[in-house]
Amino acid sequence: MRTKVVIVGGGFAGLNAAKTLGNKKDIDVLLIDRRNYHLFQPLLYQVAMAGLSPAEIAAPIRTLLSKFKNIRVLLGNVENIDLKDRKVFSDVGCFEYDYLLLGCGAKHSYFGNEVWEPLAPGLKTIEQATEIRRRVLMAFERAESEADPQKRKALLTFVVVGGGPTGVELAGAIGEISRFTLSRDFKDIRSSQSRIVLIEAGNRILAGFDEKLSKRATRDLEKLGVQVWTNSRVSSITKEGVCVGDEFLSASTALWAAGVKPSSLNQKLGVSLDSGEKVEVSSDLSVPGHRRVFVMGDQAAAKSIEGQPLPGLAPVAMQAGRHVGRCVLNDLSGKERKDFKYVDKGQMATIGRTKAVLQVGRFKATGYLAWLSWLFVHVYYLIGFKNRLFVLFQWAWSYISYSRGARLILHKEWRSYLNRESK
Amino acid sequence: MRTKVVIVGGGFAGLNAAKTLGNKKDIDVLLIDRRNYHLFQPLLYQVAMAGLSPAEIAAPIRTLLSKFKNIRVLLGNVENIDLKDRKVFSDVGCFEYDYLLLGCGAKHSYFGNEVWEPLAPGLKTIEQATEIRRRVLMAFERAESEADPQKRKALLTFVVVGGGPTGVELAGAIGEISRFTLSRDFKDIRSSQSRIVLIEAGNRILAGFDEKLSKRATRDLEKLGVQVWTNSRVSSITKEGVCVGDEFLSASTALWAAGVKPSSLNQKLGVSLDSGEKVEVSSDLSVPGHRRVFVMGDQAAAKSIEGQPLPGLAPVAMQAGRHVGRCVLNDLSGKERKDFKYVDKGQMATIGRTKAVLQVGRFKATGYLAWLSWLFVHVYYLIGFKNRLFVLFQWAWSYISYSRGARLILHKEWRSYLNRESK
Repeated sequence: MRTKVVIVGGGFAGLNAAKTLGNKKDIDVLLIDRRNYHLFQPLLYQVAMAGLSPAEIAAPIRTLLSKFKNIRVLLGNVENIDLKDRKVFSDVGCFEYDYLLLGCGAKHSYFGNEVWEPLAPGLKTIEQATEIRRRVLMAFERAESEADPQKRKALLTFVVVGGGPTGVELAGAIGEISRFTLSRDFKDIRSSQSRIVLIEAGNRILAGFDEKLSKRATRDLEKLGVQVWTNSRVSSITKEGVCVGDEFLSASTALWAAGVKPSSLNQKLGVSLDSGEKVEVSSDLSVPGHRRVFVMGDQAAAKSIEGQPLPGLAPVAMQAGRHVGRCVLNDLSGKERKDFKYVDKGQMATIGRTKAVLQVGRFKATGYLAWLSWLFVHVYYLIGFKNRLFVLFQWAWSYISYSRGARLILHKEWRSYLNRESK
Repeated sequence: MRTKVVIVGGGFAGLNAAKTLGNKKDIDVLLIDRRNYHLFQPLLYQVAMAGLSPAEIAAPIRTLLSKFKNIRVLLGNVENIDLKDRKVFSDVGCFEYDYLLLGCGAKHSYFGNEVWEPLAPGLKTIEQATEIRRRVLMAFERAESEADPQKRKALLTFVVVGGGPTGVELAGAIGEISRFTLSRDFKDIRSSQSRIVLIEAGNRILAGFDEKLSKRATRDLEKLGVQVWTNSRVSSITKEGVCVGDEFLSASTALWAAGVKPSSLNQKLGVSLDSGEKVEVSSDLSVPGHRRVFVMGDQAAAKSIEGQPLPGLAPVAMQAGRHVGRCVLNDLSGKERKDFKYVDKGQMATIGRTKAVLQVGRFKATGYLAWLSWLFVHVYYLIGFKNRLFVLFQWAWSYISYSRGARLILHKEWRSYLNRESK
């Protein structure tokens, strides 16, 4: 009898689990995702900052898995899961499984202030990235035709909340855009008029990195005109600006990069979650009491061999996906499962066009060398040969010309645009 | 005293007029557009058909004109024009002019059935192109998980209304996608299951071309699986399908390429319009009675020297823009204005991956040779060196691999997506 494996989510974890099970004997795999594409999230900020087009960092899941005859891909939204009866309920049907592999990822958390979401969008989806792009470019356009100096100042003030890698990368890119790219095109705006503030609640940015790298990143950001405010907590966000403690920052654009929480599916599983709503998993990434259910990537509270929580990074999810795939294969061939051992691939964050910080175990690098490593690692891991090549061209071009190729302000919704047009 | 020239619209006409007046002595130019980018409309169907990304066929107007010190670019919506007081009213302010150059283009016309618009979107903007892409790709995704053969058939039926170049290009591309690109990725769909119908009210498609070319295009389309219905009139469009005469075509996707009408600004000018709502212009493209107001491109009812109405093609708009710019320069230097003489650059339409029809005066070409000419002319005219290079790479890749690089289904609105997500 064939074994039915259902994978939910085509991110780094799900995709790698699927590939591990691809074309294996007596296994049928069904992968369900709400999107038709796999997204290379580490480069999403480049889409938000008009450096890359969405299609350059995303590829259809079907195409990525088309060579595996035993894998079926469906576009669908998983609404509930019954672990007892081994059933997955989705808007495209109900599916039974022998093995269930969950890799649904995470979304932004506003720590109870979900009303801030429309005012300060996060960066987890392509739609959010193009919305952020629209807001940043529109702020410059509006400033160009604004006569009132106070209003213009607010239009040219950008607040980024959260000093992790995403916040650092967004703030650095806005600094670079306002200094170089846009200053040539906007005749009435001087780059010195724009103000970028990066707000971090902790006592330093890039808390996951070595302290020296935090410091270096702060200096590099300051060179791009970014003000780094640590030990600062956002108390409210309105259309007019951001309150930090009791200080009000008048700003038309606020972006959120401060926290994540896992898929809301976790609440429906009826299993034990940690304080961050992640599923607590055994050392082999299976759910305690459900030996044939695995949770991978940002959705799980996986730990290192030493008992430390693993960070929400792409390499963790990729390794988890491959590990879980091998667990299923071992089960079926009567071998013993192994524990999940994360091999540290390091972490990095880029700051503007030529700077980055990079840390692998005890090894650290900064500046241009780190930036070059960042570039090659990211291009190397981009799924699909074509995309790698294109992104490299795109970057080479941006690097030479200081331009940003994807500076389109697209309307949020084509209908609303049509309505306005026909007025 | 400096002469104030206001240009409304950064399409082919407005952009070329601006360039003609760029860095000329004693002239200040203000160009207003509702979009921050110039769009290369002849390739818009490639964005709709997932072959190109929006940023590859669009470039910021600011960047295109940044070398001209006397040109100011504003993002704004022109709401009214007072030809008597020489004032342009927009949402970013009111502007006086000495010369007014209008190139606001056209939008789709549903001939009084505007309720069909959400059911059968047209192809004039990037938002519409990505919406069409979403609908076509979603139809295949839904068909893959649909068990009912009747419903599946409707999902795989695509109706394109209008047999002009846009309709022919859309129908050909859908035929090609369903035959080659998607058949590899969708395991439960056979390409023979999909049906594409091109509906034309006249007695042949591509009515602006020679009759032989119409015939050849029909044959080429049929080879891609497209059924060409001439002398057929759409009587209604619903969510379930399209009524052609009294025959009902059950189809989940309908696209509109049947007619255009000029910007609704024309109604507010108080000048005489032709039956198609276009502004009637003198032989120098100025408005009778308003010597310093010009209307260019699709917004005007311009005529050839022989008195024939000029078609709504990019070369007509480009030449009109340059002509009007020279008229202004001639006025200021005391020279006489010339009449607008359109130099026929021909017209072409592509059918799928390797076929096209091409006509320049009496010269005609079909098949592979015409397709190659089409490719090089379009890439050559793409604004901006970088885009040309990238689009050529993109096409070379698609050509070799039969793949389409931009197959992303993006949600219409990020908020609606978020709402669904947080349920």
